[in-house]
Amino acid sequence: MNIAVVGLGLIGGSLCKAIKKYTDNLILGIDSDSDTIKKALSDNSIDKQISSEQLSTADLTIVALYPLQTVDFIKNNAHLFKKNSIVIDICGIKKYTVDKCTDILKELNVNFIGTHPMAGREFSGYDYSLADLFLDASFIITPREDSDENSIETVRKLAEKIGFGKIVISTPQKHDEVIAYTSQLAHIVSNAYVKSPALFENNGFSAGSFLDLTRVAKLNENMWTDLFMCNKAPLVKELENIIEKLNEYLSALITDDSKLLYNLLKDGRERKEKSAVIFPQKNKDGNFNGK
Amino acid sequence: MNIAVVGLGLIGGSLCKAIKKYTDNLILGIDSDSDTIKKALSDNSIDKQISSEQLSTADLTIVALYPLQTVDFIKNNAHLFKKNSIVIDICGIKKYTVDKCTDILKELNVNFIGTHPMAGREFSGYDYSLADLFLDASFIITPREDSDENSIETVRKLAEKIGFGKIVISTPQKHDEVIAYTSQLAHIVSNAYVKSPALFENNGFSAGSFLDLTRVAKLNENMWTDLFMCNKAPLVKELENIIEKLNEYLSALITDDSKLLYNLLKDGRERKEKSAVIFPQKNKDGNFNGK
Repeated sequence: MNIAVVGLGLIGGSLCKAIKKYTDNLILGIDSDSDTIKKALSDNSIDKQISSEQLSTADLTIVALYPLQTVDFIKNNAHLFKKNSIVIDICGIKKYTVDKCTDILKELNVNFIGTHPMAGREFSGYDYSLADLFLDASFIITPREDSDENSIETVRKLAEKIGFGKIVISTPQKHDEVIAYTSQLAHIVSNAYVKSPALFENNGFSAGSFLDLTRVAKLNENMWTDLFMCNKAPLVKELENIIEKLNEYLSALITDDSKLLYNLLKDGRERKEKSAVIFPQKNKDGNFNGK
Repeated sequence: MNIAVVGLGLIGGSLCKAIKKYTDNLILGIDSDSDTIKKALSDNSIDKQISSEQLSTADLTIVALYPLQTVDFIKNNAHLFKKNSIVIDICGIKKYTVDKCTDILKELNVNFIGTHPMAGREFSGYDYSLADLFLDASFIITPREDSDENSIETVRKLAEKIGFGKIVISTPQKHDEVIAYTSQLAHIVSNAYVKSPALFENNGFSAGSFLDLTRVAKLNENMWTDLFMCNKAPLVKELENIIEKLNEYLSALITDDSKLLYNLLKDGRERKEKSAVIFPQKNKDGNFNGK
């Protein structure tokens, strides 16, 4: 089929490269930056550049933009998509994009499906895109009750072909609640972690724990501001929770209550071990998490 | 020289194996668990078992116990160490052990030097010890003003020989302030991170950020309770700081202030990048941190 990819950033570019590497689909690229298009053409990541007007030639359109841009793009180009074709987004929050985009496209007989490829790097942009970025990663699909079954199946098969290790079907609401915890909170905590005066005094003192805690502090503030603001309620809940928990450790320290501190640490260690048994996951070093 | 190692846990066992692998020193082992001694003898990590009374045959004694145990052991066996020999500890906090142990041993003409090998694993005990645990890691030495220069030099040379990548000289006070941030806070934040109801709903939703944030949640609560309680003031300061910072993000979300949220994220990203330029460090995956 003809697949249009809108936005050749880290994820859009990696999707082009992966689809090219693992399938025979024709890839049509759209990007506002002409240099990026040139690079993608010259390294054969896309077959040709198209204009928005030519979206009508695509059987599947992947909109790989930030949340607000995604909704804007779909709103502004709604009438250009091929009837009965599929349009997907790849944003890290799903209720916001799925609700808005599905409603816009449904009455035009275009099938919108929300997806979230759970992969990334500490870098942004086409130059860092990789054909194998998605190997072993999770691909989350968040259909609504009124979503087209065949479209879901087409998207699922494509994800499997380009290397995703696990396809997860969830609702937009559930996705956003869990992602607020597993991804969004991690980025905020990491970003807050580097805001100690001790940061610039740690030469020779930083072990693996510090590097792990602060790795994702290096985030793209343009994208993440959107993602956080579009998922306010679940994220506020998670932030309030970890602040409450941190205050328990603080209180144990201040009151010299070593028994309470011990119990707080033991409870955390046991929860971590239990979760690692239920959901064994490979760390970056190839070891299974918690084992 | 004859090196006694007291406590063949993860660090003590690894030190035996590293000294055996990289030097010709004779290693004398002390451990309360007879099975551990048997294992260490059978895999040739120690040359022989000794009793506390035989500590007088050691030129260097490495006490590889938890903080409270370390001070107790040195207090109870102070008169058994060889005159003019060196005794070091390996605890993750230094003011507590250095102050107590130096004073006890000084009047007996035994040279105490505080050290902190910055290495570890998410596992405890001799079975997980490794000869190459310390490769490329930092070895921190925290002498007092009245510490014996020759003893510092002997300890430094040994650390270099067994693979440490960097030897850092610091004061006990400075060490404890920085370590409260780079290591202790990381363990508490990670341990608190797993205390969300969403923990057990994350199958397929957890990317690298979640795994990084929660890796050290699996800690040894016996050891860390001691370490935290012995370093209360600096740790309280760091905990209060991160709670204050997290509340800034929370407040920006609640008040829908996306400009403020953006600025908070940008500031964190810039601090992380700046620190990575000043202190380039390899991540577990071999990439330089932040580059």
